[in-house]
Amino acid sequence: MTATPGLTAPPLATAELLRSAFRRHAAGVAVITARGDAGPVGFTATSLTSVSAEPPLLSFGIGTGSSSWPAVCEAEYVGVHVLGEHQEALAATFARSGADRFAAPTAWYDGPEDVPVLDGVLAWLVCRVVARVPAGDHRIVLAEVLLGDPGGAGRPLLYHQGRYDRLRD
Amino acid sequence: MTATPGLTAPPLATAELLRSAFRRHAAGVAVITARGDAGPVGFTATSLTSVSAEPPLLSFGIGTGSSSWPAVCEAEYVGVHVLGEHQEALAATFARSGADRFAAPTAWYDGPEDVPVLDGVLAWLVCRVVARVPAGDHRIVLAEVLLGDPGGAGRPLLYHQGRYDRLRD
Repeated sequence: MTATPGLTAPPLATAELLRSAFRRHAAGVAVITARGDAGPVGFTATSLTSVSAEPPLLSFGIGTGSSSWPAVCEAEYVGVHVLGEHQEALAATFARSGADRFAAPTAWYDGPEDVPVLDGVLAWLVCRVVARVPAGDHRIVLAEVLLGDPGGAGRPLLYHQGRYDRLRD
Repeated sequence: MTATPGLTAPPLATAELLRSAFRRHAAGVAVITARGDAGPVGFTATSLTSVSAEPPLLSFGIGTGSSSWPAVCEAEYVGVHVLGEHQEALAATFARSGADRFAAPTAWYDGPEDVPVLDGVLAWLVCRVVARVPAGDHRIVLAEVLLGDPGGAGRPLLYHQGRYDRLRD
């Protein structure tokens, strides 16, 4: 939408309003991985959230235009990684279009259920996908926690107003 | 699960593993409101996330045992508020069981579509509920942004390891 000079600006388009409101919000940073037919895939997500304790479910969003979507669409298992403030470069790699995200210096291994597991994270989980809920141009993936390790060293990486940030305390 | 003394401890129960992993994660803090038959309801959420740009959708989780659930289950509209670091007391009020959350000192007004809108937040949105997705003992509420204001003053309130926190920069 373009405002005509001299007239009152129109209300924000709702997509722009959503974007502006979430620039005010802060979020933790995660990387989601899966084993695709053509190799490992993964992407940086700021939408990771805990959903339910019984059964233990989490969720994250993924755009259907994302390079990881064809693999995540088919995957039975996904890897979920909580990134630390020391992993800003890793977060950027998994957010960059066209990057070979699993090439050096990315350190990872084939984990349980053949899921790619990243080294050096605060916590990782291997989860079974239980639903992919259509939501506009995205899907909300619901997944049940199977196993993992919440004991990595460090403090969480954050994202706010379009850049990475850290906790104060 | 109970470990037998003298034996190797069993793997973490998966619900405990989920909880431990998300204690390492950090999240922004929101308050969700709705107009119930018996008055305004609202609760503090760390699960607010942007979902889709087209159409403009967001999501949050709510437990089906929550005091706000009967109203949110029926509501056509909800209010979504991004809290600032100056609003830790408000976040605590809307997380406390049994509190009269809309009594003084909570400052609020009847906003568009009769949705309760809180004063002093970083951003607020009035949204139309488009889905309530069953997910274990919770529901994921999907809602479309209708209008709001992302222009409040301040920086976001965060939640990490069971307590409120702030951004460093």
